Amino acid sequence: MASIHLKPINEVAQRYGIAQEFLIPYGPSIAKIDLSLIKPQAPKGKLILVSSITPTPLGEGKTVTTIGLSQALNFIGESCIACIRQPSLGPVFGVKGGAAGGGKAQVLPMEKLNLHLTGDIHAITAAHNLAAAALDARLYHEQRLDRQFTEQTGLPRLNIDVNQILWKRVVDHNDRALRHITVGVNGGVNGVERSDGYDITAASELMAILALSESLKDMRQRIGQIILAHDIHGKPITTEQLEVAGAMTVLMKDAIQPTLMQTSENTPVLIHAGPFANIAHGNSSVIADRIALQQADYVVTEAGFGSDMGMEKFFNIKYRQSGIAPSCVVLVATLRSLKANSGKFDIKPGQPLPAEIANSNVELLAHGCKNLGWHINNAKRYGLPVVIAINRFPTDSDEELDYLRSFALSCGADGVEISDAFAAGGEGTAKLAKVVTQACQKQHQVTLLYPDEMSLTDKIKAIVNTYGANNTLFTPEAVSQLTQLEKLGFGHLPLCIAKTPLSISADPTLKNVPENFDVTISSFKVSAGAGFIRAYAGNIMTMPGLGTLPAYRNIDIDDQGEIVGLS
Amino acid sequence: MASIHLKPINEVAQRYGIAQEFLIPYGPSIAKIDLSLIKPQAPKGKLILVSSITPTPLGEGKTVTTIGLSQALNFIGESCIACIRQPSLGPVFGVKGGAAGGGKAQVLPMEKLNLHLTGDIHAITAAHNLAAAALDARLYHEQRLDRQFTEQTGLPRLNIDVNQILWKRVVDHNDRALRHITVGVNGGVNGVERSDGYDITAASELMAILALSESLKDMRQRIGQIILAHDIHGKPITTEQLEVAGAMTVLMKDAIQPTLMQTSENTPVLIHAGPFANIAHGNSSVIADRIALQQADYVVTEAGFGSDMGMEKFFNIKYRQSGIAPSCVVLVATLRSLKANSGKFDIKPGQPLPAEIANSNVELLAHGCKNLGWHINNAKRYGLPVVIAINRFPTDSDEELDYLRSFALSCGADGVEISDAFAAGGEGTAKLAKVVTQACQKQHQVTLLYPDEMSLTDKIKAIVNTYGANNTLFTPEAVSQLTQLEKLGFGHLPLCIAKTPLSISADPTLKNVPENFDVTISSFKVSAGAGFIRAYAGNIMTMPGLGTLPAYRNIDIDDQGEIVGLS
Repeated sequence: MASIHLKPINEVAQRYGIAQEFLIPYGPSIAKIDLSLIKPQAPKGKLILVSSITPTPLGEGKTVTTIGLSQALNFIGESCIACIRQPSLGPVFGVKGGAAGGGKAQVLPMEKLNLHLTGDIHAITAAHNLAAAALDARLYHEQRLDRQFTEQTGLPRLNIDVNQILWKRVVDHNDRALRHITVGVNGGVNGVERSDGYDITAASELMAILALSESLKDMRQRIGQIILAHDIHGKPITTEQLEVAGAMTVLMKDAIQPTLMQTSENTPVLIHAGPFANIAHGNSSVIADRIALQQADYVVTEAGFGSDMGMEKFFNIKYRQSGIAPSCVVLVATLRSLKANSGKFDIKPGQPLPAEIANSNVELLAHGCKNLGWHINNAKRYGLPVVIAINRFPTDSDEELDYLRSFALSCGADGVEISDAFAAGGEGTAKLAKVVTQACQKQHQVTLLYPDEMSLTDKIKAIVNTYGANNTLFTPEAVSQLTQLEKLGFGHLPLCIAKTPLSISADPTLKNVPENFDVTISSFKVSAGAGFIRAYAGNIMTMPGLGTLPAYRNIDIDDQGEIVGLS
Repeated sequence: MASIHLKPINEVAQRYGIAQEFLIPYGPSIAKIDLSLIKPQAPKGKLILVSSITPTPLGEGKTVTTIGLSQALNFIGESCIACIRQPSLGPVFGVKGGAAGGGKAQVLPMEKLNLHLTGDIHAITAAHNLAAAALDARLYHEQRLDRQFTEQTGLPRLNIDVNQILWKRVVDHNDRALRHITVGVNGGVNGVERSDGYDITAASELMAILALSESLKDMRQRIGQIILAHDIHGKPITTEQLEVAGAMTVLMKDAIQPTLMQTSENTPVLIHAGPFANIAHGNSSVIADRIALQQADYVVTEAGFGSDMGMEKFFNIKYRQSGIAPSCVVLVATLRSLKANSGKFDIKPGQPLPAEIANSNVELLAHGCKNLGWHINNAKRYGLPVVIAINRFPTDSDEELDYLRSFALSCGADGVEISDAFAAGGEGTAKLAKVVTQACQKQHQVTLLYPDEMSLTDKIKAIVNTYGANNTLFTPEAVSQLTQLEKLGFGHLPLCIAKTPLSISADPTLKNVPENFDVTISSFKVSAGAGFIRAYAGNIMTMPGLGTLPAYRNIDIDDQGEIVGLS
């Protein structure tokens, strides 16, 4: 089915005023966009930010709704472009087998999106690991040449503290055996032996930098500010000091150009960056948003995880840096994931649904709806209209749907509508699109949670208070890191809370709307190039593992050489 | 200068009969070629294989000569395409700062060739590391679930021997700290603790497979035959058994298409694969050769290192598998590298040349010329005409050049001519091109060193005899591995000697034409998918390191956003 409806990408671009001279083709249906397209004038379009209730193993269909809504806006006669993140190979080969949306609301060609696309993630991996290799090489040569180092090389000693190397290596796979490794085993000519580890590439600070950069020049400066390690006196060592920031930027020179694809209904989609929504801000790129808003009246983009994660970070990090505000927030929910959010079931992916969830059960739905209520309030606090998109399943009962509508409106939602994107594409999402365009006309003014000049402690409290926590606690390590970060001049940065997405709190076992809980911040780390401080509330997994029956087993080429097993 | 002379890549392709429908553009000046272009008929062109004398730190200019000769063949009215290997990021950021040829004989756009190009090396890295992650995950789950493994998963136990894992991970950087690592440190949910290591991506068996595959289907089968580890009973475990061969192939589906670029004189160049010339066969791909020979009258390709390495492997491995024979061998030499081959100097890159080498010195040249004599004889034994290309430097004296000419002809060379490719491009290489075309007209019949059915021991001896060694010795480990490989049914495979390229012998300190030496084979390993057995004569470095003043320090973007520091 993939290739049937595809138009040449330059035709798709032209319909949205993007001339061929700005396109760098990667085959017939994919192109990167030259940044010279960006004009200095303020863009004309309205941005719609898609978030969701607290995610469950059942899936809420946020990407399907994002793609379906962008198709629907074109269907009802508006012009719309979608902006989404690039999928990582890890989940594709691990669990999902793909991340291109689904049914009549997907990005095509799906196998290109799910695999290398235009090489951005590979470029980030290469740039990231170049810095790691450079750092270990410098550590080795400074040890080897000792007092002769400067004399023989003409370079200043960096005096890297082998126990304070912050820059791990990255790979775009789920590879648990690389979480904790020892490098330079036995030393000698094979480097300096030390503890190290790998993250998945999406967790690289370079991914967050790519998403937040305004231009190649801005990206170059941000990359130069990355702190790789501390020296033996505790001072930060940057990529600029290691003289590797230029080469890293050169490796990412093409990656800064967003990639243009199309949906199953030929709606343009810009794919750009894919930062985590826990240790990073979880949204696609500023540059993609800017281009899309310049070329279309509406732009639909999605933020990672629930509104406590990607949406909060969209406002307090991405909007703070870019100045691009949404006109409306769409919260995606399904009846069954609301029922799952009640917290009454232990749900695992791939296992049969409990009957209470599968069958109509308004009482259970009402219980789980409290989670939706929290997310509506959470979105409203930023001063924008909030629309609820009910991603409908064929088995949903009218009684339940009616209850959900009334409940959402009673919580202050500015609209609530069913989305049938998977089964019926843009036409099936047209009603939602109308409600969203109406919401976008409302007067609004974005309010952030905290100003730049607020102390880091108070900034954290401001965020944690929105979760409904009683107290924000800090470990002694966190307190001393906070002092250090303020001393180093990072006190003005916004905060990125690294916590579980599976609860509004920082404890994944606390379901629905947790009450009577505290949040403990165990440590702080600065992403100086990306421009935020990560506050860790619990252990955050930055390198997934492969399960017993990973998705790669089903992926192959068939006798005609076509890919099978991706979705 | 890079962009001034560039033609649109479809125009370059069209002049050589490649219609636009077979091109997959990657920007305006690069395209991959769809394999449906390949016709079943025997190709029409003649293949010219460029090799060299024993390489020295001074560089012989093999790539410059390859590019210059391909330009010259077009200059004198023939039609010619060049086929070369893709450069690795490791050397680009480590030492060289680039590998695109130079002067008036280079591949453009140089920065694309030197960096990601069309993503083939990244695809190999991803496919290789997916297998590694899959293997470690299987090891972990089989240990964790123990006797319940099959019951819970439905999969057979592979019983991987943790001490017999052959498949290391790869990265396309010079990263010495990754040569010896420990993965899964402390075990538990973070995998099984064991010793491991990284090679540079060019050393992956997948790189050799890409270069030797005839089609996507053939590549799929070869990938499935890769031996990743042995089980606790000593039996090989393949990617097919791990059910990961299909997904690996899917990751390399685009990589099997060669990439078309052009030289500074718009001669088409196919870039495809870059296997090592010690642990692999060191030549670009069969598919690229086949396409080029179908579209042009002459194809120039280069083999890695000296004629004892890449050229020997071209014949005994690549030609044996593909049936594509060259019509002529060109050996590249320079006066100064011949003098360096005398073995009388300790030459290091970047240091001033000894006066004896810099100044005219026929006696010294005559001494070093013995090395050329050996390589001429070595090439002649395969039954082909041999032409010597003297890559001239401005300081070369006529007296020395005259000596070299006479010497080469006296050794049986079928021609000898000066190449001025760097300074004068195709025009400066036109005389060489004429000599080469004349040589290509000569009757010839390729003779291989050994037939498939010869025993592995005799095959090795046949190769080592060509080096001039007194004896071929085997360690007890090697003998037992040889027995095992023959028992497993690999006795029919050709051999790939993994030895130093810096000497005709296996000892890098033995210069010029070594005499009275033995070669000791320390171990054997099979590349079952690539289809050869590696015989190790000495320690082979498969992961380079960064020096004290690496090339990355000079690579950056300038104020206009253009790349500087690559060459």
